[in-house]
Amino acid sequence: MSDTPARRIDRIQPFRVMALLAEARELEQQGRDIVHMEIGEPDFPTPAPVVEAATRAIADGEVHYTPALGMAALREAIAGFYQERYGISVPAARIMVTPGASGALLLALGVLLEPGQGVMLADPGYPCNRNFAHFLDAQVQAVPVNAQTGYQLTLERVQQHWQPHTRVVMLASPANPTGTLIPPDELLAIITWVEQQGASVIVDEIYHGLVYGTPVPSALNLGERMVVINSFSKYFGMTGWRIGWLAAPSYLMPSLDKLAQNLFLSASTPAQHAALAALEPQTLAILEQRCAAFEQRRDFLLPALREIGFDIKVEPQGAFYLYADCRRFTDNSFAFAQTLLQEIGVAITPGNDFGDNQPQQYVRFAYTTSLERLQEGVRRLQQWLTPDG
Amino acid sequence: MSDTPARRIDRIQPFRVMALLAEARELEQQGRDIVHMEIGEPDFPTPAPVVEAATRAIADGEVHYTPALGMAALREAIAGFYQERYGISVPAARIMVTPGASGALLLALGVLLEPGQGVMLADPGYPCNRNFAHFLDAQVQAVPVNAQTGYQLTLERVQQHWQPHTRVVMLASPANPTGTLIPPDELLAIITWVEQQGASVIVDEIYHGLVYGTPVPSALNLGERMVVINSFSKYFGMTGWRIGWLAAPSYLMPSLDKLAQNLFLSASTPAQHAALAALEPQTLAILEQRCAAFEQRRDFLLPALREIGFDIKVEPQGAFYLYADCRRFTDNSFAFAQTLLQEIGVAITPGNDFGDNQPQQYVRFAYTTSLERLQEGVRRLQQWLTPDG
Repeated sequence: MSDTPARRIDRIQPFRVMALLAEARELEQQGRDIVHMEIGEPDFPTPAPVVEAATRAIADGEVHYTPALGMAALREAIAGFYQERYGISVPAARIMVTPGASGALLLALGVLLEPGQGVMLADPGYPCNRNFAHFLDAQVQAVPVNAQTGYQLTLERVQQHWQPHTRVVMLASPANPTGTLIPPDELLAIITWVEQQGASVIVDEIYHGLVYGTPVPSALNLGERMVVINSFSKYFGMTGWRIGWLAAPSYLMPSLDKLAQNLFLSASTPAQHAALAALEPQTLAILEQRCAAFEQRRDFLLPALREIGFDIKVEPQGAFYLYADCRRFTDNSFAFAQTLLQEIGVAITPGNDFGDNQPQQYVRFAYTTSLERLQEGVRRLQQWLTPDG
Repeated sequence: MSDTPARRIDRIQPFRVMALLAEARELEQQGRDIVHMEIGEPDFPTPAPVVEAATRAIADGEVHYTPALGMAALREAIAGFYQERYGISVPAARIMVTPGASGALLLALGVLLEPGQGVMLADPGYPCNRNFAHFLDAQVQAVPVNAQTGYQLTLERVQQHWQPHTRVVMLASPANPTGTLIPPDELLAIITWVEQQGASVIVDEIYHGLVYGTPVPSALNLGERMVVINSFSKYFGMTGWRIGWLAAPSYLMPSLDKLAQNLFLSASTPAQHAALAALEPQTLAILEQRCAAFEQRRDFLLPALREIGFDIKVEPQGAFYLYADCRRFTDNSFAFAQTLLQEIGVAITPGNDFGDNQPQQYVRFAYTTSLERLQEGVRRLQQWLTPDG
């Protein structure tokens, strides 16, 4: 057996945060108290009606394979969710259930991308996106974005960076790590233009339930020809269940079905039953309370970090992240994150995990822990970073 | 958006059995009684201790992301299973938990195969294997196998079909659709020779718990340098949970970890807790009873089908399939399967789903339904196919 893995593996960078997480756990085992602001996982438990539904389904023996596209009832319920929340009619036939948004991204890119074709995406951005492209031996076209455009691609940026081999543009709204949205008119302009080039848009709406202030439309409100990715992990608080979905143009569904039959067989059946309960009114009421709690945390953390000296240039309207320029304190965000962990027990994610666009001067704070813990984290940061403040 | 999916999608054939399954369900909705011998899914429910453990884990809030390699406790328990059942020491560090064997196959092929490299596999064989290769833009080298070698690859066959670009040889023991084993000495010879060529062997042991008669060693008994795939779906009766594992050489583990972090994040957490209970002695005792029931079904179905006139040339020693030559009745196994479904309500899988090696003269019977139902199926087949018998 040759000891060299396939080249695609070399192109995939390991996540820096994993090393920090391991270090944080070690410190905790030594008795240290760590404020976790590094984790992209809500601290809230899976809502009680979801837990009950899953338990019932398992007891009833609902643990067999489902169709590769997902249980019909769940696809219908997701269609109902779009109708209810966004006032749009997305037929269940255009919706498929996936093993997390990860599964949805792999399927969508798998049916759209030939090896060597280009995927345009924003840098900074969700790190797995470029790694899915590497996995498929596609070309990653990372476009540096900054505060001027809310850390998002714009039509102008897309046009500037367009290449003859560009095949897919990936957008995320709200985005990880910046929490920013793409304005609907910009989104529509990008989608329209990209489609005119015979290429495709994938819109990641994984954090779409977590938008603070005015509700925003889904990309699905703007047409039928893009692929929209979503998940039960973040807004619905079901990370470890591994369940998500996508909505795609009708003509892609047979390809997606065929691919899912082979790659996954189907998504986890207990998780599908759990997800069905996640869409019920009583669960949604719980989730809205949590959304309000996230907003409250943001409203505390954003000014508090700015006051300490972190430069957060754009007020994020969604998700549970703040992407902060830490140039005032360091020119090496990874070393900075390590120091904060070791010295004051505050865990954050260095910019390196989100791309190559000035990552050494950015860190990501996740407000996935209670307001009290965030306050404790801010207190420690303040003492350490501004001792004379 | 261009309406043409990526070329890899065209290379993936849809499963013929899905059309038959849909037809079977339609007939059932019309009130017809269907004997299901088409489904590769045990009819037994998830064992009670597994259900209890999953319910407890969910109630305790054990539904967060785990490390990409899986929960440490589950990896240790799988290592313990190898020690207990096979008398081999496989360190937990060489074991990873995956979203089904499907996830394990994607990861293993993903780290081993460059685009354009060759994957050698037996035809007939598990259809997803060649489709994983297509997905990765690798070359499928399907080697026709027949009764002479128990429908398995041999060292001689591997050597005959070897190409300079061959990078991976996929073996399965017991195999789907034939239920046959590879003798340990042949397995060792293949592994040794393939490794000498600087290539890799993947051994699918998904049906390894379901071997009737003398217990057989795992490929892991033969060395450390192949990748072994396994699953909680078949022997453990946990299909819809989507949980499996692989064991790999140490040097591949960082690559597998990195890839799993990106493709899956982690396997379903409730399923991991369920799987932990699946390895406990009380569950294994239940599973051994089920294994005996499968053996009893095989011992009924094999001679019964032979008597009707199906030619089953090799007695299968494992899995829950019989791969039967139906030339006496048809030269079109797909049409034959359709006719049997429509006329007598017996659902079986046509050979077309398993490759291109004389598929029109083979069908697969799965004994994943009770002895009584198998008897009913045989009665119908007998009446229809040998009315004067």
